[in-house]
Amino acid sequence: MTDTETDTTDLLSRRARALGPTYTLFYDEPLHIVRAEGVWMYDAEGRRYLDAYNNVPVVGHCHPHVVEELARQARTLNTHTRYLAEQPLELAEKLLATMPRDIGNVVYTCTGSEANDLAARISKTVTGGTGFIITDYAYHGATDTIAGMSPEDGAPLGPGVYAVPAPLGTEGAAKFADRVRQCIDLMQAANVKPAALLVDTIFSSDGVVSHPTGFLAEAAAHIRAAGGLFIADEVQPGFGRTGDHMWGFARHGVVPDIVTMGKPMGNGHPVAALAARPELLEAFARHTRYFNTFGGNSVSCAVALAVLHVIEKENLVANARAMGEYLQQGLRKLAQRYSWIREVRGAGLFLGVDLAANPAARLTARQEATRIINDLSRQGVLVGSTGRDSNVLKIRPPLTMVRAEADFLIDALEGSFRAEA
Amino acid sequence: MTDTETDTTDLLSRRARALGPTYTLFYDEPLHIVRAEGVWMYDAEGRRYLDAYNNVPVVGHCHPHVVEELARQARTLNTHTRYLAEQPLELAEKLLATMPRDIGNVVYTCTGSEANDLAARISKTVTGGTGFIITDYAYHGATDTIAGMSPEDGAPLGPGVYAVPAPLGTEGAAKFADRVRQCIDLMQAANVKPAALLVDTIFSSDGVVSHPTGFLAEAAAHIRAAGGLFIADEVQPGFGRTGDHMWGFARHGVVPDIVTMGKPMGNGHPVAALAARPELLEAFARHTRYFNTFGGNSVSCAVALAVLHVIEKENLVANARAMGEYLQQGLRKLAQRYSWIREVRGAGLFLGVDLAANPAARLTARQEATRIINDLSRQGVLVGSTGRDSNVLKIRPPLTMVRAEADFLIDALEGSFRAEA
Repeated sequence: MTDTETDTTDLLSRRARALGPTYTLFYDEPLHIVRAEGVWMYDAEGRRYLDAYNNVPVVGHCHPHVVEELARQARTLNTHTRYLAEQPLELAEKLLATMPRDIGNVVYTCTGSEANDLAARISKTVTGGTGFIITDYAYHGATDTIAGMSPEDGAPLGPGVYAVPAPLGTEGAAKFADRVRQCIDLMQAANVKPAALLVDTIFSSDGVVSHPTGFLAEAAAHIRAAGGLFIADEVQPGFGRTGDHMWGFARHGVVPDIVTMGKPMGNGHPVAALAARPELLEAFARHTRYFNTFGGNSVSCAVALAVLHVIEKENLVANARAMGEYLQQGLRKLAQRYSWIREVRGAGLFLGVDLAANPAARLTARQEATRIINDLSRQGVLVGSTGRDSNVLKIRPPLTMVRAEADFLIDALEGSFRAEA
Repeated sequence: MTDTETDTTDLLSRRARALGPTYTLFYDEPLHIVRAEGVWMYDAEGRRYLDAYNNVPVVGHCHPHVVEELARQARTLNTHTRYLAEQPLELAEKLLATMPRDIGNVVYTCTGSEANDLAARISKTVTGGTGFIITDYAYHGATDTIAGMSPEDGAPLGPGVYAVPAPLGTEGAAKFADRVRQCIDLMQAANVKPAALLVDTIFSSDGVVSHPTGFLAEAAAHIRAAGGLFIADEVQPGFGRTGDHMWGFARHGVVPDIVTMGKPMGNGHPVAALAARPELLEAFARHTRYFNTFGGNSVSCAVALAVLHVIEKENLVANARAMGEYLQQGLRKLAQRYSWIREVRGAGLFLGVDLAANPAARLTARQEATRIINDLSRQGVLVGSTGRDSNVLKIRPPLTMVRAEADFLIDALEGSFRAEA
């Protein structure tokens, strides 16, 4: 074995021993990543990989301003929100300035799972209901309650949780609001009082479903008419990734009751939050207390402020739009050449490439997506797959991507498709 | 108004506006803390406060080695556990080396709430049960499921959750295992299958209940005989605070099925975990996936490794024991002088001072605790209160505390008691 193979074998066996069976790895040949910068990750041998997968390092891996603010605040103070402090207020004010006027308060958590979990708690407490509507291959997080609203991960639906088909295709989108209404009828017939409709504003695990925009407004109106809330899960689409607004719900022209956010908020640092109508938090606070030890701590807030600063200063929302359009052009050209590219979807730098079976290689859609992903990794490009059949390539590079990097991605993809055409 | 008063008024009104009603502050005169170092926190006017409250900065605020490791790793790489990496393995191996042999795997989360929530998920999945036993003023976290096991915060008990009286006093401790057994009988009579017994190994919100040791082993045996698991919540007592072992369960001579940890693990950085018997995780992984985006990320692991390094290098477990004994001596002297100090409890630097009503000042026990806490804050010492009646002073300084700092604390306490004696 080479040194690298020995190293990999050693890490794999230590990992199996110490972390155990809940942990899984990406790619047939797992990567041992040791450093990263901007859109690039580097393995132990110095090979570089264009990171077109991870939607967390939104301003690029190890962005110097973010790292500097992290270190500065960590040297000065890291404490919780039961003392007065500037950082959590400044961050909340900056976040709220990007939101519709009705959304007036921020509550900090550490993860998107905690934000969605708290949104569910608030919904139940405020409405008195227990019924939730999600899409049927959704992922919203890993807490006990939210795992019951995340069929993608294999746990059964929780009590009171109802799933509607994802709004796939123009017809699916047109029917989405009706399906939500029918679901509310079912719920009420079963004496379950509606608490909330919880959806991504680009449906991610359902297969990167981005268009047409607008259908969420009607669905939100139905749940509200039935006494429930509309929760926009912005953990994946939020912070400018969609290239037109800071938040995916804006594309749909709808004002949520609760907005949850996470992954990119700290560019990898564990910080997350929800924003909500103040009346909801008032009603919630009358029933119970909520305190999150690390939520809104000095360092997490300084990091999130640094991320917001970089997004603004480097004009990253506009860049996400421009690079997203550029990538989509490239992907559509590939789709003309390779017939089993069924559809290119997405907005900004949140893109999905929906694959059918590859007739030349006699691979099913899922096998083809797996082949492409592993081949790209060998070529130095990281993407993932999603959707119920794992047949949709999921492309989400840092918002700092430039044309040469987008070209590198498209060229590598072309190479992978051509190899088995 | 002085500049400071203007500053405080401004922060308070911004806070009420942006964060809303779920957020509360410590002390009648809230503190505006701007920096911290070791055991000391400093407010905006440069006044310093001995931090004898926060159990998070276990190696002292802004410890230079921890900050340096945080910054070094953040400059290099921050990614998740789906690539191979050294940091999460080294950390898991170091944590497991402090545990009984049966505990063989670590799963990372970001908060103690997430760790307890995952422990509950695992318990339900593995046992097929839904019944949990907790103490009747417990706090285990803020997720939807764990809020139902945290009566301290005011939410109702969750479905299947049963509370037993905390083991207060020698008699309460002696009866604890019997109460757990009776609770299992009740549960089974109601056709609820036991999933787990979840307790702190120093009962914190129940009033800092530390002694006698040993009674947890019998209670654990009862839940296991009924097919349930024993979860040791080490989020507060863990990482050497009790002054004799790394983990509070060791004081009780019991081996848990699952151990949860959090708060001090990253000295303020959001990192947490559970450790468990590998068979449990195998059974869990057969039913569902679990992935925590930020859990076990490169930076969080580097920070937790730095904290473990400092605990060992600075001999902090032994210091916690020595300083804990020194503080207890001082507190017991006060108890001889001030008759309404009912009991001094605790182990290491996790101490509770149980107050009765102050006859001289005609204050109830709760009022007296509130008076002492606020008076101490004005004297530059931070402590909190806990217990069902909020009448137990909660003292938990960084494990780096030295004698002069302990003397400062005792002198301030003496001053507060004497003022209304």
